[in-house]
Amino acid sequence: MKQIGALATQAERIVDLSADFRLRDPAGYERWYQHPHPHPEWLAQFAYGLPELHRHELAGARYVSGVGCNASVTLLALWPLYRRGLVRETVVEVKVGSSEGGHRPSPPAHHPERAGVVRSYKPTGHRHVAEIIQELALDPNEPKVHFSVTSVGIVRGALATCHCLLDENIPEKEAWSFYRQDYGDEPFVRLVRARRGIHRYPEPKILTASNYCDIGFESDQANKRLVVIAAIDNLMKGAAGSAVQALNLMYDWPETLGLEFPGLHPI
Amino acid sequence: MKQIGALATQAERIVDLSADFRLRDPAGYERWYQHPHPHPEWLAQFAYGLPELHRHELAGARYVSGVGCNASVTLLALWPLYRRGLVRETVVEVKVGSSEGGHRPSPPAHHPERAGVVRSYKPTGHRHVAEIIQELALDPNEPKVHFSVTSVGIVRGALATCHCLLDENIPEKEAWSFYRQDYGDEPFVRLVRARRGIHRYPEPKILTASNYCDIGFESDQANKRLVVIAAIDNLMKGAAGSAVQALNLMYDWPETLGLEFPGLHPI
Amino acid sequence: MKQIGALATQAERIVDLSADFRLRDPAGYERWYQHPHPHPEWLAQFAYGLPELHRHELAGARYVSGVGCNASVTLLALWPLYRRGLVRETVVEVKVGSSEGGHRPSPPAHHPERAGVVRSYKPTGHRHVAEIIQELALDPNEPKVHFSVTSVGIVRGALATCHCLLDENIPEKEAWSFYRQDYGDEPFVRLVRARRGIHRYPEPKILTASNYCDIGFESDQANKRLVVIAAIDNLMKGAAGSAVQALNLMYDWPETLGLEFPGLHPI
Amino acid sequence: MKQIGALATQAERIVDLSADFRLRDPAGYERWYQHPHPHPEWLAQFAYGLPELHRHELAGARYVSGVGCNASVTLLALWPLYRRGLVRETVVEVKVGSSEGGHRPSPPAHHPERAGVVRSYKPTGHRHVAEIIQELALDPNEPKVHFSVTSVGIVRGALATCHCLLDENIPEKEAWSFYRQDYGDEPFVRLVRARRGIHRYPEPKILTASNYCDIGFESDQANKRLVVIAAIDNLMKGAAGSAVQALNLMYDWPETLGLEFPGLHPI
Repeated sequence: MKQIGALATQAERIVDLSADFRLRDPAGYERWYQHPHPHPEWLAQFAYGLPELHRHELAGARYVSGVGCNASVTLLALWPLYRRGLVRETVVEVKVGSSEGGHRPSPPAHHPERAGVVRSYKPTGHRHVAEIIQELALDPNEPKVHFSVTSVGIVRGALATCHCLLDENIPEKEAWSFYRQDYGDEPFVRLVRARRGIHRYPEPKILTASNYCDIGFESDQANKRLVVIAAIDNLMKGAAGSAVQALNLMYDWPETLGLEFPGLHPI
Repeated sequence: MKQIGALATQAERIVDLSADFRLRDPAGYERWYQHPHPHPEWLAQFAYGLPELHRHELAGARYVSGVGCNASVTLLALWPLYRRGLVRETVVEVKVGSSEGGHRPSPPAHHPERAGVVRSYKPTGHRHVAEIIQELALDPNEPKVHFSVTSVGIVRGALATCHCLLDENIPEKEAWSFYRQDYGDEPFVRLVRARRGIHRYPEPKILTASNYCDIGFESDQANKRLVVIAAIDNLMKGAAGSAVQALNLMYDWPETLGLEFPGLHPI
Repeated sequence: MKQIGALATQAERIVDLSADFRLRDPAGYERWYQHPHPHPEWLAQFAYGLPELHRHELAGARYVSGVGCNASVTLLALWPLYRRGLVRETVVEVKVGSSEGGHRPSPPAHHPERAGVVRSYKPTGHRHVAEIIQELALDPNEPKVHFSVTSVGIVRGALATCHCLLDENIPEKEAWSFYRQDYGDEPFVRLVRARRGIHRYPEPKILTASNYCDIGFESDQANKRLVVIAAIDNLMKGAAGSAVQALNLMYDWPETLGLEFPGLHPI
Repeated sequence: MKQIGALATQAERIVDLSADFRLRDPAGYERWYQHPHPHPEWLAQFAYGLPELHRHELAGARYVSGVGCNASVTLLALWPLYRRGLVRETVVEVKVGSSEGGHRPSPPAHHPERAGVVRSYKPTGHRHVAEIIQELALDPNEPKVHFSVTSVGIVRGALATCHCLLDENIPEKEAWSFYRQDYGDEPFVRLVRARRGIHRYPEPKILTASNYCDIGFESDQANKRLVVIAAIDNLMKGAAGSAVQALNLMYDWPETLGLEFPGLHPI
């Protein structure tokens, strides 16, 4: 954050995997990260590194931010509905694995403590909300997107269950058409639509080591609710994978370069 | 369901662990279980077997229904707020272990498929909603309680994360006082209130084999949201444990008889 | 180790859970623990705290050592055969959970690293061999008991698979009779003898939180090999549980006091 | 087994993944599989499909058998020592995941039963011993290789811990040179030799989805024991991966074709 000036003189292009340049509004750093940004003048120079939402901006960009893993999976789930103004209010529950906590040993990540948990990590106040507010262009004072993260016993993977409360029901066919329109050409978004079987909803287990974001939904017509479910491997599409994908776009390389790695199943 | 008449002639008292007599309204069986109830005249004779909500009714009762595990943990979380009319709308996400699927082997429960999942089980339409509507006295046509269940890789345990959207903020102190008022004398409800540490929220891992329901919450004042979190061991408080507790009440035995089994940690 | 003199003036009786007074021969500390014992004169005053092998010595003892968890499960498996002089040579493979590594976070116990491992911990040179040599009265220079420990992904539990190579085959009936003779009256040793089913061999999973050591075996007549299998919960019978049991013996209290805690299943 | 004649008229080359043509001696089927082989005349036409031991035979072969996963990992561990006649007697303990049990649901593989097990699967009498006897050219009546399999809570992976009891100690340097000589040019065998760190021994966790067999050892000079440790992903090198590798050899294709899939870590 403090060294950006010096680093920029040495690197032709930068993809910064940290959160230091994800927010365009400096006030976001004070509110969500509890400190002022030392170089707010740089914020506007960075593009938010989620290819599906910023493909054109990323093409040729010099400075690209990383993306929050939980923000990514949530944004990919919600984007087609929010950009069309279809949602009244949303509750997002993200279930995540232990690799989200980083590689440094700590009491909560000590195996005897961490194995088999279903542990509320951030019921309120998760920092990735700042990215969601920014990217969905929500009112920061009343975003009406409620966000919680719960840790489960896996190592890799994040599943976002997004309960979208709607003003009016959306026919299922129409909802699918929105997602197909927005993601039909995306190399790393897959729509999951099955009526039967173990894998009728997105599931991080089968995405391990892949760069895919799988998205599906189920409609609760009686209650004007659409439950959008999205899964990623947080160590791929959640951060490093998206960064590589952004890099490919910055240099006009094939977008899938270095990322065509099939999901494993079973694991 | 069909044999209740014959069974009642042979047993002085009945605690029925199935769902056959949980709903008082016969219409609930058609809507949520897709078949009419063959003996609707019996429904009114059964008390709903959740001791915390029906202690007085259970004392001396002859017929008591079991309770749904996911309904139990949700009801215990929401009851103090709903009986006081404080909630506008709620989204409940329950995370559950594989023992909820029963003991019969099946493809989705086959270990190579089931290990390490974060699998959407019922994003919409879960049958336990019927019990929640009944016990919280919600409008069946517009309950405004949205309910999803996600399977995770543990064997025992259920964690309900209840996002209560409020009309007006409730000061935290007041919210705690409601829970203390309602559950302060309950032998199997514990309020979890810690600012720090691994166990600052309820967590099923440390409840394994115990009959406790642990409840805590976190307030999101900026968004008028109260996230109530409740954990149980589904094989204890979720079904069998509550049944034993109900039995104790029916016979005026000490309520904790057969249930004083400490939680294990770590497991 | 250094403070034993001071401690002994303050406590009527001592059960020391560490390894500091487990070995009677001071040379064992130099060889297996790489340092001389500062108070070798105390070693003879301690009884080795495994009740099944030292019941009479423990009754009324003032000073009792703890026992190594992996040594305990191995000793209980091998004792009936070795005291009868029936074994030529043995290879012991113990599979253990993460709680054996203690409660301090560390890189190898960090959940993303530790989850799902099958990790050789000590293929050779494990310190508990010293206790095994002592208790089975083996030749320290040629013990002919080979011992390895492998870590697996559980939290609690140890399973010892002991491949006993025999000079002469022992008829199965006779082998069972030896184990029954030695352990028939033991409150915390159970013999597992089933031809069918999931639980036909001892298994730590179903011993979680209990103080039992389950023992069974299978005979390979063609190769004069007897595979003795023993399971414990290392946090109970492996250390703390045996210490409580020893304490009960020291004070002539009921031997099962504080230890009658049923195994959980499934977990 | 019965259809081999018909199948051979339709396929130019056959790699049979079953155990039907692994043994050259028909008597092996009666002894280890409890039935006579219906077409013993075919047995000599099949090469045993482990490339590291039969590379030359596989080149151009028409009929190749699959290999047992537990036999493979054991054979790769023991081959350099046995072909040099250095071992007196060996005890092999293989730890395996649930995918070895196949894809069909069953009570022992039901997740609540299977999760977190350390379950003795075959203490004696495992069928893969037949392949080990054949490939190491052991005396079938006194093979002096003792073999057990224990199931642990992972899905993929097998770790063989081979306690080789030697007549004479082998200096470590010399032992390494044997392994380097035999496997130095092998594309899918890696020697693991580190004094420190989490991964100082072979470990199936980091081999998930790869075709590697990692091999290392530790010497117990005091007891003339060499503990050879080998790890594979049983769904790759254990069966399907070796079959693809054999196919490549049969057709003189690049040996790594379809198999260059890096290991994942952490998983």
